[in-house]
Amino acid sequence: MSSTPAPDDRRYVLMLGCPDRPGIIARITSFIAEFGGSIMEAGYHSDTDSGWFFTRQAVRASTVPFGLDELRDRFSAVAAELGPETEWQLLDSAARRRAVLLVSKDGHCLHDLLGRAASGELPATIEAVIGNHPDLAEITRAHGVTFHHVPFPKDPAARGPAFEQVRELVDAHDPEAVVLARFMQVLPAELCAHWTGRAINIHHSFLPSFVGARPYHQAFARGVKLIGATCHYVTAELDAGPIIEQDVIRVDHSDTVRDMVRQGRDIERVVLARGLRWHLEGRVLVHGRRTVVFN
Amino acid sequence: MSSTPAPDDRRYVLMLGCPDRPGIIARITSFIAEFGGSIMEAGYHSDTDSGWFFTRQAVRASTVPFGLDELRDRFSAVAAELGPETEWQLLDSAARRRAVLLVSKDGHCLHDLLGRAASGELPATIEAVIGNHPDLAEITRAHGVTFHHVPFPKDPAARGPAFEQVRELVDAHDPEAVVLARFMQVLPAELCAHWTGRAINIHHSFLPSFVGARPYHQAFARGVKLIGATCHYVTAELDAGPIIEQDVIRVDHSDTVRDMVRQGRDIERVVLARGLRWHLEGRVLVHGRRTVVFN
Amino acid sequence: MSSTPAPDDRRYVLMLGCPDRPGIIARITSFIAEFGGSIMEAGYHSDTDSGWFFTRQAVRASTVPFGLDELRDRFSAVAAELGPETEWQLLDSAARRRAVLLVSKDGHCLHDLLGRAASGELPATIEAVIGNHPDLAEITRAHGVTFHHVPFPKDPAARGPAFEQVRELVDAHDPEAVVLARFMQVLPAELCAHWTGRAINIHHSFLPSFVGARPYHQAFARGVKLIGATCHYVTAELDAGPIIEQDVIRVDHSDTVRDMVRQGRDIERVVLARGLRWHLEGRVLVHGRRTVVFN
Amino acid sequence: MSSTPAPDDRRYVLMLGCPDRPGIIARITSFIAEFGGSIMEAGYHSDTDSGWFFTRQAVRASTVPFGLDELRDRFSAVAAELGPETEWQLLDSAARRRAVLLVSKDGHCLHDLLGRAASGELPATIEAVIGNHPDLAEITRAHGVTFHHVPFPKDPAARGPAFEQVRELVDAHDPEAVVLARFMQVLPAELCAHWTGRAINIHHSFLPSFVGARPYHQAFARGVKLIGATCHYVTAELDAGPIIEQDVIRVDHSDTVRDMVRQGRDIERVVLARGLRWHLEGRVLVHGRRTVVFN
Repeated sequence: MSSTPAPDDRRYVLMLGCPDRPGIIARITSFIAEFGGSIMEAGYHSDTDSGWFFTRQAVRASTVPFGLDELRDRFSAVAAELGPETEWQLLDSAARRRAVLLVSKDGHCLHDLLGRAASGELPATIEAVIGNHPDLAEITRAHGVTFHHVPFPKDPAARGPAFEQVRELVDAHDPEAVVLARFMQVLPAELCAHWTGRAINIHHSFLPSFVGARPYHQAFARGVKLIGATCHYVTAELDAGPIIEQDVIRVDHSDTVRDMVRQGRDIERVVLARGLRWHLEGRVLVHGRRTVVFN
Repeated sequence: MSSTPAPDDRRYVLMLGCPDRPGIIARITSFIAEFGGSIMEAGYHSDTDSGWFFTRQAVRASTVPFGLDELRDRFSAVAAELGPETEWQLLDSAARRRAVLLVSKDGHCLHDLLGRAASGELPATIEAVIGNHPDLAEITRAHGVTFHHVPFPKDPAARGPAFEQVRELVDAHDPEAVVLARFMQVLPAELCAHWTGRAINIHHSFLPSFVGARPYHQAFARGVKLIGATCHYVTAELDAGPIIEQDVIRVDHSDTVRDMVRQGRDIERVVLARGLRWHLEGRVLVHGRRTVVFN
Repeated sequence: MSSTPAPDDRRYVLMLGCPDRPGIIARITSFIAEFGGSIMEAGYHSDTDSGWFFTRQAVRASTVPFGLDELRDRFSAVAAELGPETEWQLLDSAARRRAVLLVSKDGHCLHDLLGRAASGELPATIEAVIGNHPDLAEITRAHGVTFHHVPFPKDPAARGPAFEQVRELVDAHDPEAVVLARFMQVLPAELCAHWTGRAINIHHSFLPSFVGARPYHQAFARGVKLIGATCHYVTAELDAGPIIEQDVIRVDHSDTVRDMVRQGRDIERVVLARGLRWHLEGRVLVHGRRTVVFN
Repeated sequence: MSSTPAPDDRRYVLMLGCPDRPGIIARITSFIAEFGGSIMEAGYHSDTDSGWFFTRQAVRASTVPFGLDELRDRFSAVAAELGPETEWQLLDSAARRRAVLLVSKDGHCLHDLLGRAASGELPATIEAVIGNHPDLAEITRAHGVTFHHVPFPKDPAARGPAFEQVRELVDAHDPEAVVLARFMQVLPAELCAHWTGRAINIHHSFLPSFVGARPYHQAFARGVKLIGATCHYVTAELDAGPIIEQDVIRVDHSDTVRDMVRQGRDIERVVLARGLRWHLEGRVLVHGRRTVVFN
């Protein structure tokens, strides 16, 4: 699926999308070849439907004879040739990524992400955890991570100040990822817009089935034979953002809603962890409602 | 998952559903033990949600000292004790099952079922195939199966006589299964009612996602990472009948709608074949919108 | 797959294996019906290959008009009727189960089990963690669990006293499960025998492929397209004990050994957690090299 | 996973492997860009373990201003620059591919491939089917395909002439694929060598587990919880050739060997069909015991 960098495998990662036309790959790879850059991973996708081209290139940093800033400067000339709609960025795999987690009472995703961070599996540091309940404060702090408790009023209409406080706490870390790890609160549209492309949610169903509340109850009532989980970018339309990853697990008639909740946790954990990792490693390009994932 | 009978493994299969209360299993199994019956497979399910009890018992026929008719007579007294709502039937695994297939132009499910029938994998004979197009006549007849071409008018409102003809052709065989093997026509409500519990459809999505027409186009547009297929009983509400079986296959951004169509065929074939087999072997009990599948 | 008990769902669980003959189910369920016991879950399996019969019955405790000891007394008479080879036990789902974990340096399974225990997903308390390295002491203690560091000498021939110390530390808790959570040490035969049916290992391959050391390296060299994990009971023959659960994950040519190690962790965690849960809930019956899992 | 060509999507497909060094991608894509070629699919893989580089490029044929022969001529100069070890080929997606199938008595893979050919799913024509038993002659001929019956003597040592006859019948078609569709005969080493890279087998286990005869019996005896199928190139060492594709299906204690045989067929069919399609579309590059599959 994808390459895990070895400790000495520092790489500069180019992500780019532009209208498709012949010669783009040649132009980009010639640019890299000119300075002797060694390409470690290369992904390409021509979307015939939208006429758009996407690529991700990981160049071994030690083969680039100048710094990241100069690489950006030089590449911007190439990107200009590819047209004004071109979108691109260049990441340094050695740069520390920052994630902030939003949680509620249910701790399985938090435990999993803290455990992965401790095991060196997460390509980011967890800068802070913010909970609308205090339940998960202790375990968070046991991992040496700051926990903020921001109580939310029962009345949805009165939650503006709480969301404002969350926003400030999150933004103080300028994170690459704002992870709704079973946060159970619908973000206001302005926060969705503010964190566009950075806010990542795990929804406990195989979207677009069972949007909204209590998806396992919906799944039980419908009598499905598989339940799922979906990791997606948060947008103003509920549970409708671009999907990064999904997976399912088999259930049968003997499984109660409670069984589904328990079994679903195993895929929620894994689907969120995968989607978050791909996001942090610059493997996900968004185009409209769809994602290109170079994994 | 389930036991395939060996050639000498003739069995009488009891399927039963009734309101739950203590002692039901003891009552049924004592009945079987009294005449020395050997239980080869036993499935039980207590649905705490509905308060209903379901069981399937496969008794080795050679251990029953009388015929199926007498077994039915004797068991009806037991069933009466379990209350007036009790529903049950007794099948003979050695009795020939009959299936009639409805098809259109797309042959992959038909080819698969004909191949399974020829390989001895399908616990039924395919009595006839009815197509609203003639495309699949030749291969059907090469397998020694009758093919009926019933042309359907373009105007949906004018299809009544065609459906009436299909009904007559199907009913002439009194089949245990009427299989919509990518038939692409919505059955009228009266036919759904007429074939209740016998009409089985394969829908090319992971229901309840992507109900109705062109589900792979819908799946592509939504950007899902898995596509699915669903085998379900046909009811008057489109694609909303009780689900027998579902499965999914992974796709990614490089898959076009055409790729999804091709890859989806592999799960459509398998999901339909599994669901049909379970139905024919008396493994599926329907309760409301849900199924109990003893496989 | 299986039923998670609700808080008020205390049940007495009967597990039984005996030579098969007609009437066993009737005998057992009549015994339960006589005192008005309500069966919440019932699993049966007739193994035609070995001629052995297996069952698991979960009876709602509130419907049993006497205590567990009397239930055991009464049932022993029934068991005696089923023949001298009959093996059975009766568990109380409300009784606390105890697990002791053996670990080394790799923490992903430990983090996962500690997280599940904290989330209430594990039907046991983790009594202690024993490591042959001190690396995982801190996180264990952060969860309020005792950690013992037992250093192992480099020379395998000199490890006897260390194993003896481990044995004493484990046995002090009289645990229902001794979990080798990536312990990386081969238990001596006498310890395997001592903990028969209680020592559970997670092996990082799809057994019987890639027995022994460095299975991911073996998998990479062979060029397999799926990697796996296996949860099994520990026996004196390395990686050859009865299998409780297995699962796999897809890999491709772009995955290095390091990628496989990372991706494999996700199935190791889940496969171990599932297998351990089934063991603790009395869902696993061992017969020779095979297991019957009523899940 | 991969792109299915639309009817107008004729493409020239370059497959290449060579020792890795910076600039290869730029060299190849610049070559294509020089004549205005449009790349529809591009796959790259740098194998850090072997230091080898692999690529597959599908160029839209209508954007190549000369014929395939000239394209080959021109590219051979580029390939020469990449070093003497470079291996490459150029395929025309519009050229008819030819497959010959070797079968025995078990028809499920044959039925499946004939059905796929009839549905237009197989990117090849089935030129002939050769069976060491006559059982599958009729269905083969019903599909309009030639069937040759080549009886094999019981004594393995006396099978030389029969294999010689098979070789002549196969070679008369000069096929791109010689498919052992459950042929159940071990090819002699000289035939393995003669058909290197073209002979494809489906083995009914998840290799390297359960090499050789009766793998489902072996799987049952070991008590595995998943059974598998493996599509691989045939080499002189039994069941040890480079793996193209594998998949698994879940089984449990209630499944007899006969059940495994039946359920295994569903993955044998699909795994063989996938592997064969990838081979025919030029998606598989072999390097030692491993394959690179650009799907």
